[in-house]
Amino acid sequence: MNKSEFGVIGLGVMGKSLSLNIAENGFNLSVYNRSEGDEANVVSDFLSKNESFQNISGYTNIEAFITSIEKPRKILMMIKAGAVVDAVINQLTPFLDTNDILIDGGNSYFLDTKRRHETLQKKDIHYIGCGISGGEEGARKGPSMMPGGNIDSYKLVAPILETISAKDKNNKPCCCFIANDGAGHFVKMIHNGIEYSEMQLLAELYGMMSLTMTNEAISEVFLNWNKTSLSSYLLEITAEILVAKEDDNYIIDTILDKAGNKGTGSWSSKLALEIGIPTTMMTSAVFARYLSSFKEKREFLSRRISSENSDQNIPNITILQHAYRFARIINHQQGFEIITEVAKENDWNINLSELSRIWTNGCIIRSELMQQISGLFKSKNDLFDDDFILNTLKSSETSIAELLKSAISNRVSLDTFWSAYNYWVSMTTRRLPANIIQAQRDYFGAHTYQKIDDNSSQFYHTNWTKNINSGL
Amino acid sequence: MNKSEFGVIGLGVMGKSLSLNIAENGFNLSVYNRSEGDEANVVSDFLSKNESFQNISGYTNIEAFITSIEKPRKILMMIKAGAVVDAVINQLTPFLDTNDILIDGGNSYFLDTKRRHETLQKKDIHYIGCGISGGEEGARKGPSMMPGGNIDSYKLVAPILETISAKDKNNKPCCCFIANDGAGHFVKMIHNGIEYSEMQLLAELYGMMSLTMTNEAISEVFLNWNKTSLSSYLLEITAEILVAKEDDNYIIDTILDKAGNKGTGSWSSKLALEIGIPTTMMTSAVFARYLSSFKEKREFLSRRISSENSDQNIPNITILQHAYRFARIINHQQGFEIITEVAKENDWNINLSELSRIWTNGCIIRSELMQQISGLFKSKNDLFDDDFILNTLKSSETSIAELLKSAISNRVSLDTFWSAYNYWVSMTTRRLPANIIQAQRDYFGAHTYQKIDDNSSQFYHTNWTKNINSGL
Repeated sequence: MNKSEFGVIGLGVMGKSLSLNIAENGFNLSVYNRSEGDEANVVSDFLSKNESFQNISGYTNIEAFITSIEKPRKILMMIKAGAVVDAVINQLTPFLDTNDILIDGGNSYFLDTKRRHETLQKKDIHYIGCGISGGEEGARKGPSMMPGGNIDSYKLVAPILETISAKDKNNKPCCCFIANDGAGHFVKMIHNGIEYSEMQLLAELYGMMSLTMTNEAISEVFLNWNKTSLSSYLLEITAEILVAKEDDNYIIDTILDKAGNKGTGSWSSKLALEIGIPTTMMTSAVFARYLSSFKEKREFLSRRISSENSDQNIPNITILQHAYRFARIINHQQGFEIITEVAKENDWNINLSELSRIWTNGCIIRSELMQQISGLFKSKNDLFDDDFILNTLKSSETSIAELLKSAISNRVSLDTFWSAYNYWVSMTTRRLPANIIQAQRDYFGAHTYQKIDDNSSQFYHTNWTKNINSGL
Repeated sequence: MNKSEFGVIGLGVMGKSLSLNIAENGFNLSVYNRSEGDEANVVSDFLSKNESFQNISGYTNIEAFITSIEKPRKILMMIKAGAVVDAVINQLTPFLDTNDILIDGGNSYFLDTKRRHETLQKKDIHYIGCGISGGEEGARKGPSMMPGGNIDSYKLVAPILETISAKDKNNKPCCCFIANDGAGHFVKMIHNGIEYSEMQLLAELYGMMSLTMTNEAISEVFLNWNKTSLSSYLLEITAEILVAKEDDNYIIDTILDKAGNKGTGSWSSKLALEIGIPTTMMTSAVFARYLSSFKEKREFLSRRISSENSDQNIPNITILQHAYRFARIINHQQGFEIITEVAKENDWNINLSELSRIWTNGCIIRSELMQQISGLFKSKNDLFDDDFILNTLKSSETSIAELLKSAISNRVSLDTFWSAYNYWVSMTTRRLPANIIQAQRDYFGAHTYQKIDDNSSQFYHTNWTKNINSGL
C-alpha cells in the first residue's frame, strides 16, 4: 500500500471538512481520531459516510497512523486549543522523525505556539502554527490559511496548503507564509478581533434601523450595500439572516439577545492593553457581548426605568452607509496597527499587503475593503498614510456624527460606532486633555511630566501645593 | 537594646514616608535598604535627615535587620512589584521563624500574592498582601490600607496598621481585613482602575470646558462642585492644578499631553476581559492614555485634516455637573461589580460597606460619593438596587446625553463619559441587538443559539442557507 502524503489528527467539524477538502484535491490522506467514549466510532463513521474518497485511510492507533505517512511526515492537528495540544504533541513525538512537520490548525494562543515551536525545533521537528478561517464551509471548499513557523518548513507543506486554500480574485492561493514561530496564530487572533467589530457594527446598525424598519427592509438595504464597495461576507450573511424564516416566523426575532464568545476577541484586547495599542473597537465589541449577557439585570432595570425618549426618527440610509464605511475603515486601521506593533516587537517581517490579500477570500472578514487595503499596503505602511482613506474618513465624519446623535436621541447602544468616531477624533486632535492626567499623577504620586515644545525629553516635577495661585 | 516592634524593607518614596509615619506613632522601628550602587547611602541619609526620631534604627545587613526585630517579627516590604518581591522573600526566609509576618505593601499583582501566600503558608510564615493608597503624602500622614491574607495574621499587625492608617469621619481606621490571600492587592488594583476613570472624567471635562472657559473659571467651577456631594480628592487637586503658576504661566498649559501609566489600569481591564465583566469606563480611560501617547501621529493627522467644526458652544455648568455625577456613579458601579464577581470566584467574603468605608479617607479616590456608597452597601449588594442611585441616574441621563451631543458638535473626545452613558443605556435596554451576533456565529461557525421565552436553556442550530425567504 502507498504511504499517505498528509495526515490529519482530530475529526471535529473543522478536521472533517479539511480532510475532505484535502482528499478531494487528490492527496492521499491518513486521518486519526481517538476512539474513547463519545468518540468511539468517529473514524469509522467518517470513512463510511465518505466511501467515495478512496484516498482516505482512517486510524484510531496513533503509531499506525504515523507509520502510514511518508517521510518527512506532514501532520495537521485540528484539536481544541490549550493543554490538549501539548498532550497530543507529547503523544506524537516518540513516533516522529527528524524533519517531520507538525501543523497546529486550531486557534492556539500565539505565545503557546511560539513556545511549542522552540521546544520542537530543539528536536529537529518542524512546527507550524497555522491560523485557519472560514468556518465549516470554508474548511471544506477553501479556507484562508495563515501559517507561521519557519520559511523552510513552510515550503515543504506549501504545495498542499496552497492547493486546499481559497483563491483570491487573481486565482492566487489565500495562503502565504506569515512570519516566524507564533506569527500565524497571532494574525488569526487579530483577524478574529477585527471580526468582532465587523459583527458588532452590523448588530448596532440593525439595533438602530429596526426602530423604524422591517427585517425585510433592513435586509434589502444590506443587499444593496453589498453591491457597492461596502460588500463583505458578513454583510451578505446578515442580509440573509434577517429574512430567514421558520414556520412563517423570522428566526432572528426568536433568538435570545445574549451573545457568546470563544475568547479570541478578549485575547486580542488583552494583548492590546498590554502593549499600549488602543484597539477601542474590538474591545467595545467584546464588552458589548458581555453587556448583553446580563439579560436578567437588563430586564429588571428596563422595567424600573421605563424610558421612552426615543424619537423614532433615524438618519437616512445614505448617512448610515457613510457612517458604516467610516467605522469599518477605523476598525481595519486599528487591527493592522496592532499587527504592525506586535510584528515589530517580535521581529516578524509580516507583509501587510500579502496578509490582507489572503484575507480577501475564504475567511470571515473577506470584503471589498480588504481588497482595497491589500492594494494600499503595496506602497503604504498605514491606512492613514493613504489620501483616499483620509478623504473618505473626513468626508464621512459628519455622517457618523449624525448617526451617534440620533443614537443618543433614540437611546440606542452604539458603542462600537462611537469607538470608531472617538478614535478618529482623538487621533486628529493636536492637543488632548492628557496634560491634566499628567498633572494629577505628578500631584499625588510625583510621577513627573514632560513639557510641550521641549525636545530635550526632560522630566519635570512640581511641588503643586506650593504653586497655587495666590488668588485662590 | 530593646528589639524593634516593626521592620520596613525598602526606603523609596513610599517606604520612607511610611517609616516616618510608624515612628511618629511611637513604634520602635528597624529599617533596611540595600547599600549597592546608587543606594549606597540611602539608610544613613535617611537616619541623618530624621535624627529627631530616636526610635528608628537602620540596617544594610539583612540578618542584622531581622535579628533586631522582636518575635513574631512584623516586616513590611515596600519594594518594586514583580520579580524583586520573590527575590527579597527568598533572601529573607532563611532568617525568618515560624509565625513571623511578612507584609507586601507594593502594587503586586494579586495572583502573585496568592501564590506567595500559599508558598509561605507551608513554611508557617504569615504573608499579608496589603494595598496602600494615598501617595507620598498619604503614606506619611495616614494612607488607606487594604490588607489581605488570613484573619489571624492580620490581628497580629492590626494594632500598628490601624494606628498609622488614615481615619474616616467617625475616627475609625481606614484599614480593615479585606479577605484571604490576594484579596487586598486585588481591591487595590480595582481602586486604581476606578481612579483611572475618575481622572479621565476630569480631563474630559477640562477638554470640553476649556473651549470657552479660562483655567481660572474651570477651577472655580470645580471648587464650587467640591462643596457639594460631588466633592472628592481628585476634584480638589484638579482645581488646584488648573491655577498653579510658575513664572506667571499656568503650569498646566505647559504640560505635554502624553499620559503615562504604571499598569494597574491595564491589569484591571485585562482581568475584566477575562472574566466577562464590562468595565467599559476604566478600559476607555486606559485607552485614552494610550491614544494620547501617539502625539506625533496626532499632530500629523490634525494638520492633514484641519477640522473646524467646533460650535464653541458648550452645555451650561448645571448640565456638566449632572453629567459628571452620572458618570461617577456608573464608574463606581462598574468597579464594585468586578469586585463582587472576583470575590465570588475566589470565595472571598469581602464586606463592600467596610471596603468603601476605608476608601473614604487616605486614598486617591476618597470622596463624598464613596461615603454614600459605604452607607448604601450596609443594606444593598449593588448600586443599582438603590432607589436614590437609580433616580439620580435617571434624572441626569438627559444631561449626559446633552454633553455627548455637544462633544460631537465640538469634536471633543469624551470617551469615558460616553462609556458611562452607553453602559447605562445598554443595561436598561430589554432587548439588545445581540441576537444578530448569535445568528452570525451560528451561520458561519454553527455555534448555536438560545431562544427568547424558552426557559429550557436549549440550544438551537439553523441551516441558514436553506431557510432564506424565497422572496430573496
